[in-house]
Amino acid sequence: MRVRKRHGAEEMLANNPQFVVPDPKNWRGHWKERFSNGHPLHIEIGMGKGQFITEMAKAHPEINYIGIDLQISVVSFALDKLQAAELPNLQLLHVDGSALTEYFADSEVDLIYLNFSDPWPKKKHEKRRLTSKNFLAVDEEILQPCGQIHFKTDNQGLFEYSLASFSQYGMTIKQVWLDLHASEFTNNIMTEYEEKFSNKGQPIYRVEAEFPDKTQ
Amino acid sequence: MRVRKRHGAEEMLANNPQFVVPDPKNWRGHWKERFSNGHPLHIEIGMGKGQFITEMAKAHPEINYIGIDLQISVVSFALDKLQAAELPNLQLLHVDGSALTEYFADSEVDLIYLNFSDPWPKKKHEKRRLTSKNFLAVDEEILQPCGQIHFKTDNQGLFEYSLASFSQYGMTIKQVWLDLHASEFTNNIMTEYEEKFSNKGQPIYRVEAEFPDKTQ
Repeated sequence: MRVRKRHGAEEMLANNPQFVVPDPKNWRGHWKERFSNGHPLHIEIGMGKGQFITEMAKAHPEINYIGIDLQISVVSFALDKLQAAELPNLQLLHVDGSALTEYFADSEVDLIYLNFSDPWPKKKHEKRRLTSKNFLAVDEEILQPCGQIHFKTDNQGLFEYSLASFSQYGMTIKQVWLDLHASEFTNNIMTEYEEKFSNKGQPIYRVEAEFPDKTQ
Repeated sequence: MRVRKRHGAEEMLANNPQFVVPDPKNWRGHWKERFSNGHPLHIEIGMGKGQFITEMAKAHPEINYIGIDLQISVVSFALDKLQAAELPNLQLLHVDGSALTEYFADSEVDLIYLNFSDPWPKKKHEKRRLTSKNFLAVDEEILQPCGQIHFKTDNQGLFEYSLASFSQYGMTIKQVWLDLHASEFTNNIMTEYEEKFSNKGQPIYRVEAEFPDKTQ
C-alpha cells in the first residue's frame, strides 16, 4: 500500500515508544517479555493502515500481535488506531519485512499474515513478492515448526503465483478460498483495501499454507 | 457428465474393437505393443463425449492417448469422433476409472487428464471426487515417478478442494490458472462442456500438479 507522506509521522512514532517499538532488535528472542505473557505471537507483514491487525488484536486478547510496515506514514495511521484502542496485545514495528530475522529469533513467531501484498506483476520483480522463495525462507526461520502463513489478496496473478510458490517451497496448502466473501468463512476481518475494493465485484482469494516440520 | 442412454451404443462399441479395447486387462503392462510404438501414454479419466482427447490426439501424433469413461453412451459419442478421424494414437476404454490398476501397470502412464469431473459437492460424497486421496493413490501407482495430473474445472468448490487435496497428498502445485480463457495459456483444447459453459462468464480453473518421486 502506498500512501502520501504524513506530516509529523516521524515524531508521532518517536513519541509513542510503548506502541511503536523503538529498538526492535533488542527484543529479538524476548517478545514474550515485552508483552509480559507467554501468549502465541502472530505478525502481519505489510500491515498498511492497521485495521486488520488492530481488529484482530481486539477480537483475540489471548494472542499477541505485531504489525510491521516499512512506510512511516502507514505505521502512523496504524498508531492512531492503536492509541484509540489502547491494546496491550499489539505492538508496531517500522522496519523492513525482508530483515525479519533481525527482529525475531528462530521459531519465535506462531503465525504470519500477509494481506493484499504488492503484486509486483512483472516477472523481473518476482523476487520482491512477499510470497517468493527468499521471503518464505525468512518466514520459515522465524516461524515455529509447521508454522502457517495466512494470505489474502484480490490479485489473481499474485494468488496463482503464490499457490505454486508455497507448494514448490515444500509448504502444504491446507485450505483455499476463491471467493472469500461469498464463502462460509466466518469472522473475516477486512483490511481497509479489502473493504474498498471487494465491492467492485472482484473476488477475494485466501489461502492457509503450512511449512514442513523443520526440526525433522 | 450424464447423458441419455443411446440406443445401440453397446453394439457400436462391440463392433469397433480396434478403437474400443474389448479386453483392456489383457493389455495391462503392454500398451506400447497395442500402439506398436514406444511413445508416451497420456490418459483422460472421464472423457465424456471425447472432444478433448480426440483433438489432443490429432494435435500430438507423437503421444499415445487413452480415453476412459464408465458411461457407455458417452463412450459411443467419443467413438463417433474417433471413427471419423481414424487416429492411430487414440484408444477408448469403457471401464470404471476407480479400477485403473487393473488396466495399467505400475508407472505405465505418463500423464493424467481430469476435465470437468463430477464435483460431488456434498461432504459425505468427498470420496467420490476424482481428486480425493483414494483416487490419487491409484493415479500415483499407474503414473511414472513425478507424473503429473492436469485438471480443469469450472466448479469453484471442487477446485478449492482439489488444490488442498493434491498438496496434502504430497503433490507439488506446478502452475495454477484462475481464469484459463483470459490467460496466456496457448493451445487450450476445450471439452464439449467447457465450450458450452465458459460463455456464461464462469472462469475456467486449471492446475498442473506433480506427484513426488515414488522411487525415492
